[in-house]
Parts: sequence; structure tokens; C-alpha cells
Amino acid sequence: MLISEMAEGECHEVLGRAWFGRLGCSLNDQPYVIPVGIVCEPDYVYVFSTYGKKIEWMRANPKVCMQIDEIKSQSDWISVIVNGNYQELEEPRYTDERNHARKLLEKQHQWWLNAMAERRRQLRDQEIAPLFFRIRIESVSGLRAESEAR
Amino acid sequence: MLISEMAEGECHEVLGRAWFGRLGCSLNDQPYVIPVGIVCEPDYVYVFSTYGKKIEWMRANPKVCMQIDEIKSQSDWISVIVNGNYQELEEPRYTDERNHARKLLEKQHQWWLNAMAERRRQLRDQEIAPLFFRIRIESVSGLRAESEAR
Repeated sequence: MLISEMAEGECHEVLGRAWFGRLGCSLNDQPYVIPVGIVCEPDYVYVFSTYGKKIEWMRANPKVCMQIDEIKSQSDWISVIVNGNYQELEEPRYTDERNHARKLLEKQHQWWLNAMAERRRQLRDQEIAPLFFRIRIESVSGLRAESEAR
Repeated sequence: MLISEMAEGECHEVLGRAWFGRLGCSLNDQPYVIPVGIVCEPDYVYVFSTYGKKIEWMRANPKVCMQIDEIKSQSDWISVIVNGNYQELEEPRYTDERNHARKLLEKQHQWWLNAMAERRRQLRDQEIAPLFFRIRIESVSGLRAESEAR
């Protein structure tokens, strides 16, 4: 098995087709990792989520990491890491960006937004209202493992 | 889709069958997430890895998070989070623990250790020597998503 670094362009290709990633945030140097639905553009990763610990943490410390992988087998995989900064898309300051994020995410994740809407209707619980945010990409890097027999 | 918290016993069942996870560490509140091979016991997650940034970071800040998931579909998944502390299994202090870790990990990940050994032979590069460490589990929690139609 050969492990090599990926070029930045290749990393962005992986991000371009990703719909799911693991978001890492930290507070007082305690890390926290959660799976999230995403859509990527060259400068931003758009994420939707419900309110919770991660949102509180990223409000306090906006430095985040997003890890995305495509695993075909134990010896054939790629893993891309994005370092960036959390930006909540609150209104009215970010109305345009929020609408843009919603449009992108709805296209990819309509099933999930429907499920949350249905659940919210049942529970009348605003805590599960979808919350949109984005990560401003500061750097990307990636590793590729390939079988040497290829 | 219904999302519910998992009982601690259920989380440990998931850990018991996990061979792969995403490890989150952080330094100066910059989080970092990497995929790693693992084997879990009730009190520890055993991990092997090669030397690199994550090892330096965990030596400086041993607080880590391990995220493990089983995703059957977009509306049928579980995600377990372990909070814990990094312990490097250096010799001679941890010889027994290191041998135990090696035995567990070799059983699960022999393919990968073979691949690293082969690569090391070719490169004469000790940087890719396998490094064993474990995470002492401090707490576990988990979420389960299920389709409401079930």
C-alpha cells in the first residue's frame, strides 16, 4: 500500500462531490467530532445542523476542522482535511448567504429537512429547527492510499 | 426520522465491534480529525498509527474524542462519541499494555501492519514504524436515527 499526499486541486474535487463529513471543533482544548451533512464550494463548506453543544462551542471558538473520506477498501481510500473558521449565517447580516446555503443544502439533503420539519411539527420544538452555517476554508490537504498492485 | 440517545451499554456494544474511527485532537484550540484503525475494550480504545502531527498534538494535549458510526442509510444510522485521554504505550513502563495492544490490533489489522512493514523495508524510514497508543475512556454517548416507518 502506498500513501501519498494529494494536490490541492484533487482535494477540492473530493470536496466538490462530498455530501457528508465529520466536523471537529474544540473548547478549552477538549475536541468534539460529529457527523454532518455538507455541500462544498471552493471557498466555503455549507453545513446544516440542529442547535446543540457544537454550535455553542463554535460560537466560543470558531476554529474548526472538517474531515471527508472516500473509503473503497482498507487499502484504497482518500481522506481530505479542511481547516477553517465557523460563520453562522444569521439574519439580516447574512440573508443572501443564508438563502444560498439553504438552496444548496436543500438540493442535496431534502429528505433530511423534510424529516426535521415533520418532527418539529409533532414536537413544536424549535430546538430542532435547522440551523445553517458555513466554514470559511483556510487550507485543505489530503492523503491517498493505493494498493501497490495497481 | 426519529433521533434518540443511546444507552451507555448500547454504545459499548458499538465500540466492541468497531475497527475504524475518527480521532479528534486539538492544540491551542485548533481541532484536527483523522481516520484511524482501532480495537475497543470496555475501558480503552487501542489505536495504531504512524508518527505525525496528531502524536505531537496529543503529547501536548492528551484530551481526545473518538467518533464511531455505522451508517446504513441517510435515515438509519448510529454515531457514538468517546471522550478520553491519550496514553502512549512506551517501553518499558507499558510493555505489557503495549504487547496487549499489539496483539489485539494485529488480529484486526494484520493487512495494514504488513503493508507498513513492506513500505518501511523499501524506504528504510522509521517515521512509518507503527506506533501504539490507547485512549482511556472517560465517557461515551451515542445517537441513533431510525426511520419512523419501522
